[in-house]
Amino acid sequence: MRRVWFVLATLVLCQSVRADEGMWTFDNFPRDRLKQAYGVDIGQPWLDRLRLATVRLEGGCTGSLVSPAGLVLTNHHCVADCVSRLSSAARNVQAAGFIARTRAEEERCAAEQASVLVAVEDVTAQVSAAIGTRSGAEANQARKAVLTQLETACEARHRSATEYYSCEAVTLYGGGQYFIHRYRRYEDVRLAFAPETDIAFFGGDIDNFQFPRWNLDFALLRVYVDGAPAVTPGHLRWRRGGAAAGEPVFVAGHPGSTERLKTVAQLRFERDVRLARWLLRAAELRGRYLEFAARGEEFARIAQEPLFGLENVFKVRRNQMRVLLDEAFLGQHEREERALRQAVAADARLRPWAGAWADIEQALAAWRVIFDRHLYLEQGVALQGELAGYARVLVRAAGEREKPNEARQREYTEAALPLLQQQLLAPAPVYSELEILRLAFSLEKFVETLGVDDPAVRLALGREAPRALATRLVRETKLGDPAFRTRLWDGGRAALEQSGDPLIALVLRLEPEALRLRQRYDDEIEAPLATAGEQLARARFAVKGKGTYPDATFTLRLTYGSVKGWREGEREITPFTTMEGLYARATGQAPFRLPPRWVQAQQRINLETRFNFAADTDITGGNSGSPVVDAAGRLVGLIFDGNIHSIGGDYGFDPVLNRSVAVHPAAIMLALGEVYRAEPLLREMVVE
Amino acid sequence: MRRVWFVLATLVLCQSVRADEGMWTFDNFPRDRLKQAYGVDIGQPWLDRLRLATVRLEGGCTGSLVSPAGLVLTNHHCVADCVSRLSSAARNVQAAGFIARTRAEEERCAAEQASVLVAVEDVTAQVSAAIGTRSGAEANQARKAVLTQLETACEARHRSATEYYSCEAVTLYGGGQYFIHRYRRYEDVRLAFAPETDIAFFGGDIDNFQFPRWNLDFALLRVYVDGAPAVTPGHLRWRRGGAAAGEPVFVAGHPGSTERLKTVAQLRFERDVRLARWLLRAAELRGRYLEFAARGEEFARIAQEPLFGLENVFKVRRNQMRVLLDEAFLGQHEREERALRQAVAADARLRPWAGAWADIEQALAAWRVIFDRHLYLEQGVALQGELAGYARVLVRAAGEREKPNEARQREYTEAALPLLQQQLLAPAPVYSELEILRLAFSLEKFVETLGVDDPAVRLALGREAPRALATRLVRETKLGDPAFRTRLWDGGRAALEQSGDPLIALVLRLEPEALRLRQRYDDEIEAPLATAGEQLARARFAVKGKGTYPDATFTLRLTYGSVKGWREGEREITPFTTMEGLYARATGQAPFRLPPRWVQAQQRINLETRFNFAADTDITGGNSGSPVVDAAGRLVGLIFDGNIHSIGGDYGFDPVLNRSVAVHPAAIMLALGEVYRAEPLLREMVVE
Repeated sequence: MRRVWFVLATLVLCQSVRADEGMWTFDNFPRDRLKQAYGVDIGQPWLDRLRLATVRLEGGCTGSLVSPAGLVLTNHHCVADCVSRLSSAARNVQAAGFIARTRAEEERCAAEQASVLVAVEDVTAQVSAAIGTRSGAEANQARKAVLTQLETACEARHRSATEYYSCEAVTLYGGGQYFIHRYRRYEDVRLAFAPETDIAFFGGDIDNFQFPRWNLDFALLRVYVDGAPAVTPGHLRWRRGGAAAGEPVFVAGHPGSTERLKTVAQLRFERDVRLARWLLRAAELRGRYLEFAARGEEFARIAQEPLFGLENVFKVRRNQMRVLLDEAFLGQHEREERALRQAVAADARLRPWAGAWADIEQALAAWRVIFDRHLYLEQGVALQGELAGYARVLVRAAGEREKPNEARQREYTEAALPLLQQQLLAPAPVYSELEILRLAFSLEKFVETLGVDDPAVRLALGREAPRALATRLVRETKLGDPAFRTRLWDGGRAALEQSGDPLIALVLRLEPEALRLRQRYDDEIEAPLATAGEQLARARFAVKGKGTYPDATFTLRLTYGSVKGWREGEREITPFTTMEGLYARATGQAPFRLPPRWVQAQQRINLETRFNFAADTDITGGNSGSPVVDAAGRLVGLIFDGNIHSIGGDYGFDPVLNRSVAVHPAAIMLALGEVYRAEPLLREMVVE
Repeated sequence: MRRVWFVLATLVLCQSVRADEGMWTFDNFPRDRLKQAYGVDIGQPWLDRLRLATVRLEGGCTGSLVSPAGLVLTNHHCVADCVSRLSSAARNVQAAGFIARTRAEEERCAAEQASVLVAVEDVTAQVSAAIGTRSGAEANQARKAVLTQLETACEARHRSATEYYSCEAVTLYGGGQYFIHRYRRYEDVRLAFAPETDIAFFGGDIDNFQFPRWNLDFALLRVYVDGAPAVTPGHLRWRRGGAAAGEPVFVAGHPGSTERLKTVAQLRFERDVRLARWLLRAAELRGRYLEFAARGEEFARIAQEPLFGLENVFKVRRNQMRVLLDEAFLGQHEREERALRQAVAADARLRPWAGAWADIEQALAAWRVIFDRHLYLEQGVALQGELAGYARVLVRAAGEREKPNEARQREYTEAALPLLQQQLLAPAPVYSELEILRLAFSLEKFVETLGVDDPAVRLALGREAPRALATRLVRETKLGDPAFRTRLWDGGRAALEQSGDPLIALVLRLEPEALRLRQRYDDEIEAPLATAGEQLARARFAVKGKGTYPDATFTLRLTYGSVKGWREGEREITPFTTMEGLYARATGQAPFRLPPRWVQAQQRINLETRFNFAADTDITGGNSGSPVVDAAGRLVGLIFDGNIHSIGGDYGFDPVLNRSVAVHPAAIMLALGEVYRAEPLLREMVVE
């Protein structure tokens, strides 16, 4: 249920594509433009091979197949959830790292799944036909119903005894096009290798989104089918020496979300309502985690994964806020929007869509009215923590599963349930003190935001204070037990009502109001935004043509660019770092502390070995773990971050400053071979 | 060194004065306007009596003399610092309250001073003459030097063996007028009465800035001269029944600061730079305090005062941010500014000042460049906590005191030193764990904001991590001992350099860079802003006349209005609450927990007794503890807060929604008489 983002961003907005910008779908990749820029010609087989070697990790990342036996390369921070689930007070995998010396030692990442995109079908015509002449909330319901139908039909067509295919409806260009994406899905994903957090995330939050950089942010997973390693002949080969400075490179991956096609009103809403509130909540929660972690080593271990996750997103959003507060940035966006509006107004064929901007503003005004209640009650911000999350999913799923598939909320359709169920029922350690912190925090914000006299607040708290209630609920609930969750999942609504579990009872009490808010959101906000989104997409196609790319949607994309530094004020930032810089930066104190293995290795390794590098490819959160390949399709790097200027790429790509940051193949080879002595894993991969 | 603000605010901006708006100086009070609005005529004797009965508490509040023997009425939250200094693990004055049954039981508030404004002298001409034809940084230095000279001369003229007079230069209208305010200063202020925090701050942060309200937010201090209660015949008399709904009332007090005359560029800077950064820091610190407090009762007691203070300002600034993000609000401000600029451009006599707006924008651009370094290094945000505060003041004072008086920074002139010295040397409990929290937090933000490679960061931290350094400094410093501080204060720079104290050593290391930043700030930002401020003030006087009031400056002001509720959406809010509502709201859990005395009193007191009330007077932070008086000059209430709409009053007064919130005299009489049995105090006051 968690998504790993290292969402990226920028300062200059470019609605017309320039330079190496673009998160292209594989079926609309600008081969001509690439050829013109770099003299490189890639063909359909090249694209197909890369697509089939690229993996979507359902936890919110990307990976790539790197051996014929299902080995998947991704980031250490993409397996943080898995590592934390495998850890305990007695076994600190975060600190010690994880090396499976044999396949038998590989351990299941119980909540993870991996997917490979095998087919894409354009269903825009079917969606349009299903909506017909309907409008507003009715059109919205019809749209969602037909997307669910199409997914179900796709899965039925591809049911197989040996391979599991999952079908997913995808909306591109904010509604201009609809697709069904079919994935080969691997439900058994195991951890094969993870370095120590101290080297994977060297520099911690301080160096996050910085470059020069020295992070060994890689890990190896393996996908299994029927208990045996998957057979994956279409894997990538390594190019040990990596790409040279200036050499063209490609990144395949699943950028999570961007807002480059949003209207100015939507960006202002994002800034003034969503980001402003989120940042203040996150800053306070961060303070609570930090003080919790300061209580001792075990507290620090327990808090580490949620804290790192939060700090990462916090750095992103703080910088997004900075970008959206920049009058020059918004001014540029306004000018481009004005130009599009004028073009629409000037063309009789487009004029029916001229009301889209006003419709969006009206929908946002309606959103403002219910924003806080919807956020806290329906989006679950009032009830945070793993335990409360289980309760919310169980209660909602029980209600939705009673409905016919097409009438369900889209998160609970038959196509969505397998992943949801796996995440819900996966065993995970429960840390009561941390759960109390998170639940108390969220209940306190709930009271603070809606007010102590709000009926839903009263319904939730009665006469109890938030922390007292949180403490009681965490101590009394049995939801930490996967067997209990399984019983409730299987037993549906009746089992929930009879469970006697106080956390379930609380969520059941709040559910009617949450559902009312959901309905209001769907009808008054989602519906008009979807219609206006379709109209704007058509207007853009009509005015600007189809030579553009859609906003990111956690679906497979390809971007190109070159290995490249940048100029930071007076300073020239070169694109590569080496091992030497790592040792120069180490202080012995976290987050600049090296693991013992690396301290010992200093004397025997080549300090000129390349470590991290920068490239001007266009990526964002969800691209974590993406393979960087050269024109010959060989693996020359592993994306793990962007530089500080890349934050804001959410709103537009700045070719001058926006850089991706990746781990160099030489560092990975050196680590596996000389530091961790993980020869079996190394031998499995093809290294040139 | 701490200031108590409950800074207030609004949504509608009115640069032209309307309704009951206005924080008037006593020498420019609009008696005609008052007469027209309410048919009430007040004369100079009325004004003089009220002025001489109103007290400025140097901690950042207002009070009023309410007995012939120096008794001062103020808010409980204005004595929070005093109460917390008198508290310890063994003696929880916060929880238990404080009642001096005899004068001998009154205890010194060691860091507090009280002042009564006895004379005001217009020195605008002297300041202009001193500046002469100088400009820029030179004009700024000349201005500050002459203000210091004028203060010193005033104090020399009024030196007395029996009474201590303090003279303070005051800048009004952003530089249009300069005054010397002379205060009768009381250096010995003692606590006579404070109720339990649970009743004084009933509803806590949740109900803060809310109305209806039930807070017994009052306390009694007593000013002493030469060890005996001061003789104060000019005190106020109580009107037990208070004022009726709709009745005109007056509030005398010391509003701390407003920004109603700031330019749009300044407001944007406030929003995008100052508030945005402050809020994120404060939210995180709040989270740290809350998690610290959750560790146990003693942790909660220790954290209470800083936490309440922070939450109060946080609520203010969060709402200020909301106001400044409101496009309609800024749009209105922009229109008014455009009108003034046009008027200036159209008038040949005013045209020399037309560059003021551009000069301000240039100064703000310069500020942006050094904002973070100046904030962290010179304004001390890198080194927070009581101990670090002592170190910073000691180091800076030692340097400044070596200079001639007129060349010193204005916070370290001879006129400023007595209060500074008293605050510095006052005994105060030191809570090491809380100090570590604050210092670690501020060092971590310092590193995060300036980056680990910043030279000043390296100078401060060496190879130590922030929390490790903070822990070591707090454990090793001797600054918690007032005798040690006294030695260092007396010994000056040499004593500091030889002290061997690690916290002093750290501040000494950073001092040269802090002073460089101060100089740059003074010359590049303060100087042009001061000149532009003078020009804008003159332009406004020329265009709009002098029938207006200056922004708040923590100097004595008078505002008028009436006892009045407001309409909140569909709901009519009536102006009074009663004791009955208090008991209905109590839950037994903090912050809605009643002290035992009040639980026991429920059966015997009249539940219809009025408790709090609202009025449409124009106040802001610093007005805390202000007397509310009727047309006859009788005390009819005690200001302690504003409603939620009053936040934003910083930028403009909204007569429809902005309300002050006060304690009703009946509640105070009932509490002293029937709940606390504090008859001697009650008898001392004149109650009608």
